Amino acid sequence: MARFKLTIEYDGAPFFGWQRLAEGPSVQAALEEAVFNLSGERATVTGAGRTDSGVHALGQVAHVDLAMAIAPERLSDALNAHVRPHPIAVLSAQATHDAFHARFDAVRRTYEYRIVNRRADLALARGRAWRVSSQLDAARMHAAAQALLGRHDFTTFRDSHCQAESPVKTLEQCDVACADEEVVITCAARSFLHRQVRSMVGSLVEVGVGKWSPQDLVDALAAADRARCGPVAPACGLYLMCVDY
Amino acid sequence: MARFKLTIEYDGAPFFGWQRLAEGPSVQAALEEAVFNLSGERATVTGAGRTDSGVHALGQVAHVDLAMAIAPERLSDALNAHVRPHPIAVLSAQATHDAFHARFDAVRRTYEYRIVNRRADLALARGRAWRVSSQLDAARMHAAAQALLGRHDFTTFRDSHCQAESPVKTLEQCDVACADEEVVITCAARSFLHRQVRSMVGSLVEVGVGKWSPQDLVDALAAADRARCGPVAPACGLYLMCVDY
Repeated sequence: MARFKLTIEYDGAPFFGWQRLAEGPSVQAALEEAVFNLSGERATVTGAGRTDSGVHALGQVAHVDLAMAIAPERLSDALNAHVRPHPIAVLSAQATHDAFHARFDAVRRTYEYRIVNRRADLALARGRAWRVSSQLDAARMHAAAQALLGRHDFTTFRDSHCQAESPVKTLEQCDVACADEEVVITCAARSFLHRQVRSMVGSLVEVGVGKWSPQDLVDALAAADRARCGPVAPACGLYLMCVDY
Repeated sequence: MARFKLTIEYDGAPFFGWQRLAEGPSVQAALEEAVFNLSGERATVTGAGRTDSGVHALGQVAHVDLAMAIAPERLSDALNAHVRPHPIAVLSAQATHDAFHARFDAVRRTYEYRIVNRRADLALARGRAWRVSSQLDAARMHAAAQALLGRHDFTTFRDSHCQAESPVKTLEQCDVACADEEVVITCAARSFLHRQVRSMVGSLVEVGVGKWSPQDLVDALAAADRARCGPVAPACGLYLMCVDY
């Protein structure tokens, strides 16, 4: 058996998320089916981040073990041929050592959340960003977001279905940048709680439209109370950008 | 009657193009239907550029005459409400004078053509860019493209169905820029022949992959012969970016 590290892009819209589920289509199941059709092997494709339903990825990382002998560059081409017509692309495949684990060895996950700040509905970015029609103050959002950095109990920004053992995480980056009508929030950490990015983004938007003061965000974090979270931002604006090892 | 200038974004994928046609859905027909549902008026929405089937717009401009009294900012909101669920967004509406003509008064149309230069299929940019798997030399493409600038007989880069009276046009800009795996070609002119941008892009890609020399492009232009055009680039990568008056 040889272990391969895959870097994967996908449009999350048609999927129930990364993880294989009985209820509906998943990115993992589509890739495992492509592996089977290529190799005849029933192999598990283990992802670094179990992205939610509708969440996109530009740089998901996964590993898979194969008995078949195949060069890494041939593997990515062949998986792409077999995964069609799903909106999934294997950007690269690399041979890696047997101890490499896409999920447990990751030291940093970087997500981007894309907002289009305008009155008009989205046409080209439909399903690819969250349209916020009220005027956002991105500089105020960025300044407020810095209070989230570091090690905290993120219970406020944690989905009630989150299965993590501890609500304590260390947020390394939370930048809010604005270009024309687009506001992009970049978050990086070793790992995140379930829906943590979307919960933080929804709360930062409350700051951006002036409903919350920056101090309200600080207080919401300190309360460690899910009821203090702002409205959770929709899945369609979230992208898993890269995973570092 | 009052005349309004509309700036419009759309995803071209589900349409047979801008222009109303008996054969299938068009952006113009969808907008005219929205105007009718809003006002009860059967008005023509006249666009600056009759984009082809599958071609997108970020800044199409059109004009329409309405008898109903409505403030411009209300008009854009109301049209967006009525045009749903089509992937069309009216970005702005402005009151304009009765002599303004979206098509005939335009002094410059700017198009972008987006290529993703990589082996893997497109997932997130599917239908939004042309994937070219062979390595492109964008600097060589840009240098070659400069030979297309100015006033020329563009017969080589003109679709056989083009209805323009003359094949002579003046190309003001043809820039090829590269960022990561994306190659963007920006073309500007007062007006273009039918499929001129896609014809030039297809030929520039021949230069970019090394099949054509820059001199081959010069010779193809000088030949004024449609048979000398490279393969026409697909519609999905083309965007009407803006129209100047």
